[in-house]
Amino acid sequence: MLTIKRLSIEDAYILIEGARNRANEIGVPMCIAITDESGVLIAFERMDGGKVTSTTIAQDKSFTASGARKGTHEYAAAAQPGKPAYGIDSEIGGRLSIVAGGLPVFVDGECVGGIGVSSGTPPQDQDCAQAGIDFFMKKIGK
Amino acid sequence: MLTIKRLSIEDAYILIEGARNRANEIGVPMCIAITDESGVLIAFERMDGGKVTSTTIAQDKSFTASGARKGTHEYAAAAQPGKPAYGIDSEIGGRLSIVAGGLPVFVDGECVGGIGVSSGTPPQDQDCAQAGIDFFMKKIGK
Amino acid sequence: MLTIKRLSIEDAYILIEGARNRANEIGVPMCIAITDESGVLIAFERMDGGKVTSTTIAQDKSFTASGARKGTHEYAAAAQPGKPAYGIDSEIGGRLSIVAGGLPVFVDGECVGGIGVSSGTPPQDQDCAQAGIDFFMKKIGK
Amino acid sequence: MLTIKRLSIEDAYILIEGARNRANEIGVPMCIAITDESGVLIAFERMDGGKVTSTTIAQDKSFTASGARKGTHEYAAAAQPGKPAYGIDSEIGGRLSIVAGGLPVFVDGECVGGIGVSSGTPPQDQDCAQAGIDFFMKKIGK
Repeated sequence: MLTIKRLSIEDAYILIEGARNRANEIGVPMCIAITDESGVLIAFERMDGGKVTSTTIAQDKSFTASGARKGTHEYAAAAQPGKPAYGIDSEIGGRLSIVAGGLPVFVDGECVGGIGVSSGTPPQDQDCAQAGIDFFMKKIGK
Repeated sequence: MLTIKRLSIEDAYILIEGARNRANEIGVPMCIAITDESGVLIAFERMDGGKVTSTTIAQDKSFTASGARKGTHEYAAAAQPGKPAYGIDSEIGGRLSIVAGGLPVFVDGECVGGIGVSSGTPPQDQDCAQAGIDFFMKKIGK
Repeated sequence: MLTIKRLSIEDAYILIEGARNRANEIGVPMCIAITDESGVLIAFERMDGGKVTSTTIAQDKSFTASGARKGTHEYAAAAQPGKPAYGIDSEIGGRLSIVAGGLPVFVDGECVGGIGVSSGTPPQDQDCAQAGIDFFMKKIGK
Repeated sequence: MLTIKRLSIEDAYILIEGARNRANEIGVPMCIAITDESGVLIAFERMDGGKVTSTTIAQDKSFTASGARKGTHEYAAAAQPGKPAYGIDSEIGGRLSIVAGGLPVFVDGECVGGIGVSSGTPPQDQDCAQAGIDFFMKKIGK
């Protein structure tokens, strides 16, 4: 039998809060999605002004990061023409996202979920996703 | 040019709070989705224990209720064998939901969004969706 | 070699005008889609207030009516439980519509396209679709 | 509650007229799609001779431009190999278009919808989309 650690809804809202705070600092209203370690959505927030297209993209980034246990920016590197994961972005009906802004959430070396952010530039999205994780880690004392 | 009223993220969280309170009362952890008047997701919460399948179903219920400006239970009635909307449930890639638990949110006679709840029985889902709306209306003094 | 008769964009707008006139008479803002004899969209109009969900449904009704050369209400009858076309509504990714409101357009015994209407009750939708065809037939003197 | 400005069907037809005029000038029959600020279709015209494949592509371009509030040609640049949005074209079931010809429509600094044109070369498509916007802006005196 396996025992799995997974983000709770309370955890998810802490992650969102951290990402939202950073989004407000840089002045870019974001879509923020939190998935569990199975890639299933736990919580989602479209800040007022977040993009319609990002509603889906943020979820796909979080799905990818938690499901594959790596940042979507790592896929961005590995999926370039000539690289080993080239073409992987059209997998899973296109849900596998290779655009920066999706990050897995690791606690004690275990992937417990993911966060996906979209509406800014990919570096801005990743910055806010990271801010969500940093905020969360501080809160839980890790 | 048209002028449209739309739920804000602040409004969305009030709706979620009302539905969550009712879900806690009846002891059924729910997936709760809030969409705007165009059917686009604003906020989503999967309470700890909410069903994986309901993650999508709650969103589809809210999409349908806000996009069609009617409760999904009304479709449930109209889409029975022999009734006029029979077969409509497979429309829009199956996203058109005819299962009770999706309700439009009307303010001053205008549809400003929707709420979709899933994980319990359809009547329980609808009860929680309605509780979200009642809580919201009281908060905004309507 | 085959020679095919097909609605022009000018014809399509006449069909839309006829359906829109009737929609205005009954006070229900509609989504109106016109497809050619291959089921491909020629023209679409969402009257102010037409439903978001009907944007897709109107197109599917017209696609079905022109592609199958029969009214979607005929499918509604044939697709009831126990009837020969039962379950056909989930075909073609759910695009095959069995809800009244889609009609083929026949000229000189040949199917030259279709019209699909959605946002009202199915009988209202079909009434407006028929009004589009009647208006068109009168215009072209058939 | 938010208050949103949105293109009306009357506005949509003005945009189409402007794009069609330019398409006639350059002698390329186009598919022209107009969406609202949420990416939902308002109006569509396939000029006689417009391409079948462009029926969908024009809609996707308009969806992307209005939903992301930027021209699809901007995505074309940002989604090249090695660039930050590389791979984004397979998002949202492939509906996110990175081919020139989709433009957002801004009025008083607010995105009120989008226009997507397809059937020519991408620069021709963008030229006609821009012509639609220019024609519209002149009509409404902006």
